[in-house]
Amino acid sequence: MKILGIEHIGIAVKDIANDAPFWRHILNISHRSTEVVADQGVTTDIYDTGQGKVELLEATGPDTPIGKYLEKRGPGVHHVCFEVDNITEAIKELKESNIQVLSDKPTVGAEGFKVVFIHPKSTGGVLVELAEKP
Amino acid sequence: MKILGIEHIGIAVKDIANDAPFWRHILNISHRSTEVVADQGVTTDIYDTGQGKVELLEATGPDTPIGKYLEKRGPGVHHVCFEVDNITEAIKELKESNIQVLSDKPTVGAEGFKVVFIHPKSTGGVLVELAEKP
Repeated sequence: MKILGIEHIGIAVKDIANDAPFWRHILNISHRSTEVVADQGVTTDIYDTGQGKVELLEATGPDTPIGKYLEKRGPGVHHVCFEVDNITEAIKELKESNIQVLSDKPTVGAEGFKVVFIHPKSTGGVLVELAEKP
Repeated sequence: MKILGIEHIGIAVKDIANDAPFWRHILNISHRSTEVVADQGVTTDIYDTGQGKVELLEATGPDTPIGKYLEKRGPGVHHVCFEVDNITEAIKELKESNIQVLSDKPTVGAEGFKVVFIHPKSTGGVLVELAEKP
């Protein structure tokens, strides 16, 4: 597997409208898109530094992965996403190394990337996403 | 202020020896350096994807910023660092916008970068570091 770089940092926020101005107007990072990923129950608001994106994640309801995370941990970094050259190959390698991958096949995430998540137990405490460009 | 990219993600770990193999051998990210930053009470173990680094942070003792973080929150993403073109200018702009900056002047962090931290209260829950290349 070849890691090509940090694709984005996913940040769980209570309210995009309230938190976005820091990223957009204070840090002045260019806004890229806002997208609802319905099957994940999340609204993603994406900013692109040109070298790694910031993805603000707002839950569409309390009974969603981000809703539960906010309830348990409060707002903060939810996951870190690395771009890979070939996600199918990456999943195969990870499973061979007994790394706990959350699905056997990639799913489609924001911006059409093919993605998979690695359990924090296998990484030292961080929810890691791997993503292959569409 | 101009954000040039995600410089690194700082990850608080209990034990570098135990957690480093995932980043170094499983994800296969190139190891760059290991450095003790004495005045922060931290050992940093740095991996470079070529587009953003991963910085594993192990406390040198319990009464250090990372030691206290681990006690309170457990292992996970401790901070996100963005590279800026001019840190002195960035601090001035942030203070003018009433953003809570943790020091008035930059300090010297790992790899000789001039750095400053922004309080999570001002960012929506994330400890943000800004860094200017030495």
